[in-house]
Amino acid sequence: MYCGRKGYLVVLLLFMFFAKAPVAAQIEPNDKAYVELAAALIDRALAEGRAYAMLRELCFDVGGRLSGSPQAAAAVEWARQKMIAAGLDSVFLQEVMVPVWKRGAIEKARVVGSPSQGDVELDVCALGGSVATPPLGITAEVREVQTFEALKAMGKAAGGKIIFFNRPMDPRARSLFAAYGAAVEQRSMGAVEAARAGAVAVLVRSMTTAIDDVPHTGAMRYVDGVKKIPAAAISTQDADFLSELLQTGESVRVNLRLSCQTLDDVPSANVIGELRGSEIPEEAVLIGGHLDSWDKGQGAHDDGAGCVQAIEALRLLHDMGLQPRRTIRAVLFMNEENGLRGGRKYAEQVGRSGPKHIAAIESDRGGFAPRGLTVRAEMEIVERIGRWRYLFEPIGADRIIRGGGGADISPLLPHGVITMGLLVDDNRYFDYHHSNNDTFDKVNKRELELGAAVLAIMAYVLANEGI
Amino acid sequence: MYCGRKGYLVVLLLFMFFAKAPVAAQIEPNDKAYVELAAALIDRALAEGRAYAMLRELCFDVGGRLSGSPQAAAAVEWARQKMIAAGLDSVFLQEVMVPVWKRGAIEKARVVGSPSQGDVELDVCALGGSVATPPLGITAEVREVQTFEALKAMGKAAGGKIIFFNRPMDPRARSLFAAYGAAVEQRSMGAVEAARAGAVAVLVRSMTTAIDDVPHTGAMRYVDGVKKIPAAAISTQDADFLSELLQTGESVRVNLRLSCQTLDDVPSANVIGELRGSEIPEEAVLIGGHLDSWDKGQGAHDDGAGCVQAIEALRLLHDMGLQPRRTIRAVLFMNEENGLRGGRKYAEQVGRSGPKHIAAIESDRGGFAPRGLTVRAEMEIVERIGRWRYLFEPIGADRIIRGGGGADISPLLPHGVITMGLLVDDNRYFDYHHSNNDTFDKVNKRELELGAAVLAIMAYVLANEGI
Repeated sequence: MYCGRKGYLVVLLLFMFFAKAPVAAQIEPNDKAYVELAAALIDRALAEGRAYAMLRELCFDVGGRLSGSPQAAAAVEWARQKMIAAGLDSVFLQEVMVPVWKRGAIEKARVVGSPSQGDVELDVCALGGSVATPPLGITAEVREVQTFEALKAMGKAAGGKIIFFNRPMDPRARSLFAAYGAAVEQRSMGAVEAARAGAVAVLVRSMTTAIDDVPHTGAMRYVDGVKKIPAAAISTQDADFLSELLQTGESVRVNLRLSCQTLDDVPSANVIGELRGSEIPEEAVLIGGHLDSWDKGQGAHDDGAGCVQAIEALRLLHDMGLQPRRTIRAVLFMNEENGLRGGRKYAEQVGRSGPKHIAAIESDRGGFAPRGLTVRAEMEIVERIGRWRYLFEPIGADRIIRGGGGADISPLLPHGVITMGLLVDDNRYFDYHHSNNDTFDKVNKRELELGAAVLAIMAYVLANEGI
Repeated sequence: MYCGRKGYLVVLLLFMFFAKAPVAAQIEPNDKAYVELAAALIDRALAEGRAYAMLRELCFDVGGRLSGSPQAAAAVEWARQKMIAAGLDSVFLQEVMVPVWKRGAIEKARVVGSPSQGDVELDVCALGGSVATPPLGITAEVREVQTFEALKAMGKAAGGKIIFFNRPMDPRARSLFAAYGAAVEQRSMGAVEAARAGAVAVLVRSMTTAIDDVPHTGAMRYVDGVKKIPAAAISTQDADFLSELLQTGESVRVNLRLSCQTLDDVPSANVIGELRGSEIPEEAVLIGGHLDSWDKGQGAHDDGAGCVQAIEALRLLHDMGLQPRRTIRAVLFMNEENGLRGGRKYAEQVGRSGPKHIAAIESDRGGFAPRGLTVRAEMEIVERIGRWRYLFEPIGADRIIRGGGGADISPLLPHGVITMGLLVDDNRYFDYHHSNNDTFDKVNKRELELGAAVLAIMAYVLANEGI
């Protein structure tokens, strides 16, 4: 930006000009109070928001926090104390048993004895839930496939091989979540399909469109009656290398060593805090994220961001003296990444004993600039909630569209709860997701705090006005 | 994101659900070809865009490129070759004389002899255009002010002092460009106002809302008849420190040393390339950015991003065999940061000998996710251009609003040109702007390439359809 000479005045005028964003026309008179309220909440979030400072603590003092780990236990206590400090009316834990999977010290892969390349180390990491290899690893020839159909067509040729799933996320997808959804079966079900074909292990291209040397972990599963074979993610750079090596036509053998293990379930907890409703306290609007993360990185965007935003949203409302008509609950779910036990437990109890939830909003797409909200419901309801979009227009977060709610709150669907998700600019999400890249420095304070403001505004309006 | 067990199917469905963005209703039949064209351009930009690869070269092979520096000269030749490689119809340079300012090896400041703190180094850098201090620096008592009014009210007390301008950018601004516009007079005019009050030097709080130890440079000016005093930016962390120290009531003295210098003007150039119009080649739509940058960092977002987007937009159109009815020009302006000589020279020549420009679009707000376009014109024209917004809706870049065009193209305004700016998510921009933070790693490939697609689509539609 130019600002020397007389240019600074020109620039000042240009920017003042620029600052005039259009305001929606159809604001009803009785909504004006909400316009002012939303503006005040956004002002406060930007000027003195605390989500970023909380996230710094969660990332550095607690760190990555896989279910069942000491860090996950520390995160539960940390979150409980933060909710108390935020002045919430009641803060409590909901116990839930969670699986325990440990990565172990060894996760290595190398091309062995390539005629053209010799031995070459590959950047890999175990997929969450994988069994270990024998101590000296599994050495076998590699076969690359893009789809489960291609694997099946391979027939007996897959027997004894390491299957290399290498279908990239489609970079053309307008939302990368759609590209992720279309590729992730390779990670979650690849080991099952490969074992059915007689393979001895799988390597899966990391779920990202970035080309780098960082492998991305994530959940995989086994099924009863199918042999459990080891599964690892390989960085996109090394996936491309392996693919090019295979294209030369030479036989490529890889040695894979993983020392991961699954232990017995242990107790853990969802962390819950409330702003109690003034008129209909027995009905609730939920806002939340998931407190567990993968062990790689710090779980900053996935989903430390959603957790601190939920706490901060209630803190903002509390500190501004805003008591909603219905209760607003912040729920930090445990075990989203490898079991969804927290979300299921929560829904079970809501189904049994309430409170009645009219809506649940999850923030689990990263702490990026908010663009609006997705609503998992008929268009009529989407439009009814969409009538509030002008509240979010000044910050460009006014897309209230049909879309997914969030994994943790999906078990609430059978209980008639309208689930919603915070919609963000997701262009960077999968560069970091489930990897060593998901660290605090990748989060921008302003973007994070704006997301908290959107949660606060939407939850407050829905708690007051219903749907 | 959870994808283990059966969750992966749920997530896949949720995301497919989520991917259904609403499509605008009022598309006219004859616009459908543009919808398909825009989709194809976006597909290609995402799948095989080259803006990111070009930016990597500009950042690492050329680097920061202040006007008149060897790097700026290298950037001119680099850009010329890239335009030729992109297959443009004609590529040429437009010579322009530019100022030469050199930072020099020394830029230091320290609190000296504080009763409570002793000597304390401060993170500072010279403002662009500043004169040097004497070799051993200037040592003087510091006075903090927030405004020029406060400075004037200080009267003779400012005499012999170092004036510390410490009015922060307002974090509550909905667009940070507005906050920048409201604070930047301290940087651009602070030295003049302080010298008028008798001060011996100025320290200016860096123009960012981030709190860190990185000083941000930028242009400052002097005026005839007012003494030229040295001017430096101070990091926000040290600005806060200095302010706190002053609030203790103790007398704070600072030693400031700068070795910068201004040399004679040298020749440089704007770099211009075209896709020639098929029917009205004598009329043009301009897209561009500025090729010079500050010497701090790599000028990645400011404005390497805009330069590679302009080249890439024309490459995309060319490679897709799309010849517009009117000519589309990519112009990479020289000397935006400290003189605007390139923009002025360009407008002069256009005023003298054409071609007639119907519109000019600058990308100079960073290579972030595009959100739309600003148009510097009457609302009627804004709305006329806004009728194309549905082309950008699938990527969430459909805000076509009234706003500034860009500094380099502002001299075209008197010639009746409609100027426009690429509107982006600017939340991170001032974290990097004019500092060592403005490096390639702060740019996301996808966000950058999407911006190039928006430029290509808008320029092509305007070149074909007029305004």
